[in-house]
Amino acid sequence: MTSTAVAAPANTAARLHDPSVRGFASDNYSGVHPEVLAALAAANEGHQISYGEDEYTARLQQLMEEHFGEGIECFPVFNGTGANVLSLQSLLPRWGAVVCASTAHINMDENGAPERIGGIKLLQVPTPDGKLTPALIDREAWGWGDEHRAQPLAVSITQTTELGTCYTPEEVRAIADHVHAKGMTLHMDGARLANAAAHLGVPLRAFTRDAGVDILSFGGTKNGLLFGEVVIALNPAASPGLIFLRKMNMQLASKMRFMSAQFIALLDGDLWLRSASHANAMATRLRDGVKDIPGVELSQKTESNGVFAILPAGVADRLRASFRFYDWNEATREVRWMCSFDTTEDDVDSFLAAIRRELAAG
Amino acid sequence: MTSTAVAAPANTAARLHDPSVRGFASDNYSGVHPEVLAALAAANEGHQISYGEDEYTARLQQLMEEHFGEGIECFPVFNGTGANVLSLQSLLPRWGAVVCASTAHINMDENGAPERIGGIKLLQVPTPDGKLTPALIDREAWGWGDEHRAQPLAVSITQTTELGTCYTPEEVRAIADHVHAKGMTLHMDGARLANAAAHLGVPLRAFTRDAGVDILSFGGTKNGLLFGEVVIALNPAASPGLIFLRKMNMQLASKMRFMSAQFIALLDGDLWLRSASHANAMATRLRDGVKDIPGVELSQKTESNGVFAILPAGVADRLRASFRFYDWNEATREVRWMCSFDTTEDDVDSFLAAIRRELAAG
Amino acid sequence: MTSTAVAAPANTAARLHDPSVRGFASDNYSGVHPEVLAALAAANEGHQISYGEDEYTARLQQLMEEHFGEGIECFPVFNGTGANVLSLQSLLPRWGAVVCASTAHINMDENGAPERIGGIKLLQVPTPDGKLTPALIDREAWGWGDEHRAQPLAVSITQTTELGTCYTPEEVRAIADHVHAKGMTLHMDGARLANAAAHLGVPLRAFTRDAGVDILSFGGTKNGLLFGEVVIALNPAASPGLIFLRKMNMQLASKMRFMSAQFIALLDGDLWLRSASHANAMATRLRDGVKDIPGVELSQKTESNGVFAILPAGVADRLRASFRFYDWNEATREVRWMCSFDTTEDDVDSFLAAIRRELAAG
Amino acid sequence: MTSTAVAAPANTAARLHDPSVRGFASDNYSGVHPEVLAALAAANEGHQISYGEDEYTARLQQLMEEHFGEGIECFPVFNGTGANVLSLQSLLPRWGAVVCASTAHINMDENGAPERIGGIKLLQVPTPDGKLTPALIDREAWGWGDEHRAQPLAVSITQTTELGTCYTPEEVRAIADHVHAKGMTLHMDGARLANAAAHLGVPLRAFTRDAGVDILSFGGTKNGLLFGEVVIALNPAASPGLIFLRKMNMQLASKMRFMSAQFIALLDGDLWLRSASHANAMATRLRDGVKDIPGVELSQKTESNGVFAILPAGVADRLRASFRFYDWNEATREVRWMCSFDTTEDDVDSFLAAIRRELAAG
Repeated sequence: MTSTAVAAPANTAARLHDPSVRGFASDNYSGVHPEVLAALAAANEGHQISYGEDEYTARLQQLMEEHFGEGIECFPVFNGTGANVLSLQSLLPRWGAVVCASTAHINMDENGAPERIGGIKLLQVPTPDGKLTPALIDREAWGWGDEHRAQPLAVSITQTTELGTCYTPEEVRAIADHVHAKGMTLHMDGARLANAAAHLGVPLRAFTRDAGVDILSFGGTKNGLLFGEVVIALNPAASPGLIFLRKMNMQLASKMRFMSAQFIALLDGDLWLRSASHANAMATRLRDGVKDIPGVELSQKTESNGVFAILPAGVADRLRASFRFYDWNEATREVRWMCSFDTTEDDVDSFLAAIRRELAAG
Repeated sequence: MTSTAVAAPANTAARLHDPSVRGFASDNYSGVHPEVLAALAAANEGHQISYGEDEYTARLQQLMEEHFGEGIECFPVFNGTGANVLSLQSLLPRWGAVVCASTAHINMDENGAPERIGGIKLLQVPTPDGKLTPALIDREAWGWGDEHRAQPLAVSITQTTELGTCYTPEEVRAIADHVHAKGMTLHMDGARLANAAAHLGVPLRAFTRDAGVDILSFGGTKNGLLFGEVVIALNPAASPGLIFLRKMNMQLASKMRFMSAQFIALLDGDLWLRSASHANAMATRLRDGVKDIPGVELSQKTESNGVFAILPAGVADRLRASFRFYDWNEATREVRWMCSFDTTEDDVDSFLAAIRRELAAG
Repeated sequence: MTSTAVAAPANTAARLHDPSVRGFASDNYSGVHPEVLAALAAANEGHQISYGEDEYTARLQQLMEEHFGEGIECFPVFNGTGANVLSLQSLLPRWGAVVCASTAHINMDENGAPERIGGIKLLQVPTPDGKLTPALIDREAWGWGDEHRAQPLAVSITQTTELGTCYTPEEVRAIADHVHAKGMTLHMDGARLANAAAHLGVPLRAFTRDAGVDILSFGGTKNGLLFGEVVIALNPAASPGLIFLRKMNMQLASKMRFMSAQFIALLDGDLWLRSASHANAMATRLRDGVKDIPGVELSQKTESNGVFAILPAGVADRLRASFRFYDWNEATREVRWMCSFDTTEDDVDSFLAAIRRELAAG
Repeated sequence: MTSTAVAAPANTAARLHDPSVRGFASDNYSGVHPEVLAALAAANEGHQISYGEDEYTARLQQLMEEHFGEGIECFPVFNGTGANVLSLQSLLPRWGAVVCASTAHINMDENGAPERIGGIKLLQVPTPDGKLTPALIDREAWGWGDEHRAQPLAVSITQTTELGTCYTPEEVRAIADHVHAKGMTLHMDGARLANAAAHLGVPLRAFTRDAGVDILSFGGTKNGLLFGEVVIALNPAASPGLIFLRKMNMQLASKMRFMSAQFIALLDGDLWLRSASHANAMATRLRDGVKDIPGVELSQKTESNGVFAILPAGVADRLRASFRFYDWNEATREVRWMCSFDTTEDDVDSFLAAIRRELAAG
C-alpha cells in the first residue's frame, strides 16, 4: 500500500463477519482493497453531475487511453454480465450470433442473459482448455447469408479463460485476424484481464487493442473493487450506441463518480498489477505445493489465479469443512481453487497442509 | 453523525473535484453519507460468500422484515431501473401490461427498458400531479381476455412521484383495493420512499405493505448510498422467480455484502429518516422562500424533497450560471429544484438570494 | 370477375358456414376473391423452391417495381403485425423509438408485439382523426442524444388510418420531409393502402415512395387475399437485414409461391383497385344513407371503406341482432361499420333500412 | 382423391412455373394437395368472424379432440417456427431453458427465434441420430435453483427427427416420465408428425398425448397444406396464455377459417395418413433402390420420408444438374433426399437411374 492510500478505519461495531476467514472459492469472495476504499472517500462530498459527466469518469477515460491508446471509449457498468451483454449487443445487429467456447461465462453462468436480454444466439464450441482457435471458431463460423441461420458475426473469448488458461498476444492476434478476415468482430471478456497481463508480463494493450480485439469487458470486481467493470470500445466504429445500450440494459450508475474513482485507484499507478500478480503468485504457490502430492492430479495449466485439480472421491468434501471452494465438474471430481489479491502465503500453506493430511489419511 | 459512525478520512491527493460545489439538480448529484462509507469499511476484509449468501445480506433481510413485516423477501439490485424492471417482470406473465402515469420514471427516463428488456407494454395515463387514482387507472384497465390487447395486469405508482407529490396511505389503499378487485397487482417505485415516510410521518410499511402494495422498488441511491436499491416482494406469492430474474437482468452483485451493508447503515437506526427528513425540510425552506417572490409560480405541491416552479423567460438559464438544476418542461418554463441529504440551509438561502436578485433585475 | 379468372367450384359437402351471412364488422370477415383462389390453383402442382426463391416471388418483385419504381425490395410476410414489427425493427437500432398516433394499430391492437418482440418503445400522440402532422410528431420527437430517453428515430403513420381517414400525398410528403430533416425515417402501415389509392385517385407510389416513405407494410388480407402482406423497403438503405429479420420473427413462409401468387393476382391487373374502390363506394353509400337519419351522428370523415358514427343508447346492440359490427368507443357510443370487396348494394340498403327502423322505433 | 374432393382447375394463363419439375430437396417444395385446395374454396364466400371465432376453427377443435382426446386446446398458427416458439414460451417462465438435440430445428434452422423472440436458452445435446434419451437429457438437465444457470424446465424432441428417425411410443413415454419426474415438461416438434404415425402404424395420440407429451407443434405444411401448423396444448394446465402468446408473436391469422379448413381437409378423413404414408413409401423405395448401389452409403435409418446418404466426392453436384436436393453435411458428403405427398414412383425410379449412372461413370 502506498503512503497516499489511507484506508477507512473499520467500524467494528457494524461488522457482522469474521474477517479472519478466507478460502479458495472465488476471487469475488474477497473484499475491497484498502486503496480502493480510500479512493471512494476521496471522491465523496459535494455534488458531481450524475450518470457519468463527473470529473472522475473524465479522468478514467484519460487513464484508459493511457493504457489502451487514443480513440478508445470507456463505459463503466455494474457487473460482468452487463459488460458482456452490452459489448456483444453493440457489435451485433439484431440477427447476429456469437461464437464462443462452451465453457464461456456468457454461456454457462449468466442465466441466458446474452440470449434473453441481448437477443443473441450463442454458437458454442467445445474446447479442451477454454481457449478458442481459428480452427475451432470455424466449426461454427459459417452460413452467412443463410436466413435460417443466426448469423455468426462476432467471436467472444475470455482472458484469462474460465479454466485459468491464458491466450498469448500472438494467439489473440491470430484469432482477431481470422475473425476480421471473415467480416466478424472480436469481443474479449476480461473479467480477469489484469491476471493475464501479470502472467504474460506485457501491458494490457499488448493482447487486447494491439492484438485486434474490438471491444473489451474490463473487470474490476475480481481484482479488489467493491463493484464495477468497464466496457472499453477499442474500435468504437464497431460498437455504435453503447451510451444508449448501457442505459436500456440497466447498467447506468447514477453516482458514477464512485465507480470511476475505484478504477482510477486501480489503474493510476500499479495497484491493478500488484494485486493480480499477487493472486497469480499465490495460485502458483498452491500449484507448486500440490503437484507432488500423490492423489492430486492437476487438470489445467495455471496461467492466472486459479488452480484446477482432480481429487480422489470424498476428499473435496472433507477439505471443505475448513476451506471453502467449488467443484468444477462433479462427474470427474475436478475442483477449482481461486486465489485473490488478499490471499496470503499462510492461507496457501495451511490449505496445502490440509490437503496433504487428507490424502495421507485417505 | 452519531458517535458510532466513523467517516473515512478523505484522501485529498486523490480528490479531483471541488466538494464545496453543490446545487439543486438532483438528489443523485450528492455523494455518500459518512455513516454509509463507514459501513463499507466495516464490511470489508476477509471472505464472504458472494452473490448474497453473506452475513450482511442475511441481516438486511431481517431488517427489512422489521420494517415491513414477516414474510417479505428482499433482493438487492444495482439501480432503480433494474429494480423496476425486475419488479414488473415478476408480477407479469409475458403478455402483461402495466398501467402507469405518463410522467412515470419507467415511461420517461429508462430508455424503454421496461418494454425492451422487460417485454412489458406500458399503458400510460396523463395525470395533473403524477398521481394515479382508481378512476385514472380505469382509463387503461380494460380489455382482459381480448388477445389483441396487451393485458393490463399490474399498476405501477411512484412514491413520492416524479412531480414531488406524495400518496397518502389511504390513497395507496384505495388504489390497491381497486387494482386487486380487478385481479391486478400493484408495484410501487420507491426511489424516494424515505422522503414519503418523512413527509407523511408514518412508518414505511404504513403506505406500502399495509396499504396493499405487492412489490416495492426501495431506493437507496437518492438517500445517501453509493449505489443500490432493493426489490422487496411484499407479497411473494405474486412475484415468482425474482432470484432468477435478478441474475438474467444483470442485477446480481457478486460482492453483495457491500450493497447490503449500505442498506443496513441506512435502516438499522434512523439514518434513512434523518436524511430524508432533512432533504424534505430543505425543499420546504426553498418553497417557503420563493413563494412570495414575484414572478415565481409554484407548479406542484412540495410533499418531498423537490420544488417545481415556473420562471419568467431567461431566468432559469441565468440562475444556472451559479446553481445547477434542470428544466422540467421547457415549453412551460417549469423547472425542478431537488434537495438532498447534504443540502444545507446556507445552500438554500444563497439560492433564494440569487433567485431574488434575478427576478428583481428582470 | 374477368374471363381469365376461374373460380374453384365450392365443395358444398365441406362447407360449414352460411355464405349468405354478411355484415359490417371488419374487412377481414370477408373471404377470398375468386380470382385470388384461382391464382392459388394456377400456382399449384410440381415443385418450387421454398422460402421465396420461386418464380412467383420473383414475379412479385417485378410487379412491385412496376408499382413503386426500381430499387425497391419486397418481402412477403404472413400478417400485418408481422409486417409492422419487421418494418420498424429494420428502421431502428436497438435503442430506437417510434412516434405514432395513439390510435395506431401498432399501439392498440397488437398485444405489445412492437414492444415485446420488436424491442421498440412507442411514443404515442393523441390525434383528433388518427392522422399525424409535423406539429403532432414534434410532441414526441425530441431528446436525441439523451441516454435516458428511448431515441425517437422513426415515425409510423397508417394509410388509411384506423379511423377511416386518408392522408393526401402532400400531407405524407410534409411528414416525410419533416421526419427526414430530423434524421428520422418514415414507416407507413398500409393495411388498407389500396383503399387510400382508390380514394385519392392516384397511383400507389404517389403517396408512398414518391412522398418520401421509407418502408411500407402493404396489406393484402383486408383486400380479398386469403392471407399475406408485403414489407416493401422503398428505401432499402434505411432497412438493413430484412431477410434475417423476417425469419427470426417467424414470418417466413416456406411455400411462398402461394403468398406471392395471391399478390400477383391482386396487382398484375386492376383487381387491387377494383376491390378497394368497390369497398370504398359501399362505405360512401352507407354514409350517404345514414347522414340524414335523425339520431345518427357521423364522427369521422369517410375516406376509405369504413364509416364511424355515434348512435343513441341501445341502438347498436339492437342492430347487432341482425348485422354484426363493432363498438369503436363504448363510452361515447361510437361504432365502426366496415365494408369489403364483397359488400353489395343490397347489404348496405338492408342495413340502412334496419337503422332507420331502429331509430324510428327509438 | 375421394369423389367429394373437387380440385380447382388450374388457370394456366397465370401459371409461371413448369409443374412437371420435381425433386428431392424438401417436402415443402411440393404444392398443395387438391383436396386441400378444394376445401379452401368450400370455406370461401360470405362472412365469418375473424381471428378464430369461425365455424371452421370450431370444427377443427372437435376434430383434434377426436384425434388427441378431450381436454386438449388447439391454436392454429402460420408456420413451424411460430408453433415451436409459442409452445416453448407457454411451457416456460421467463428464466426457463429447453434441453434439445443439437440437430433440432429450433437450434439449427430458426435464426435464433427461440432465443431472441422466445427469450429461451437452448441447452444442446449432441446425438448420433437426432433422438434424445433420458441419459442424453441428463447431460443438460441439472442446476435447478442455481440462479446463474438458465433453468432447464422443458425438453423438446422432434418427431420424426431432422435426421429422418422416429421415436417409438415407448421411447417418448420413457422421456416423458423422466422429464416429468424432474418437474420438467415435454414439447414435441411434429413438423412431420403424420409421417411418424404412418411409420409406426399407430394413431397420432399413441406417441403424443398418450405417451406424455405436454404440448405439440402439429405440422401441416410439409404434408400438403398451403401453409399452417397447429399448436396443440395436450396438457393445457402446463401451457397458460397461448391465446395471448399467439397474437404477440405475430402468429394470429385474421381469416383463420382458411387455415382451419385446410386442417379439416387433412384430418376429417385419412388424407393426413394417405399423404404421409405415400411420402414414406417413396422414401423406402428410394432407400431400397440405393442400398445396393456401390459407392452410396446410407447414413441414417429411413423411418419417415427422408433418406440420408453419403456419396463419393462430386457425385452430389452432378446429380443436382437434374434433381434438386440439399447437402446435409458438406464435410462428410452426406446428402438428404426428401419425398413428399406428390412424389411418384417414376420420380424415384428416374432418380435412382441417375444415381446409378453417376456412380457407374464415377
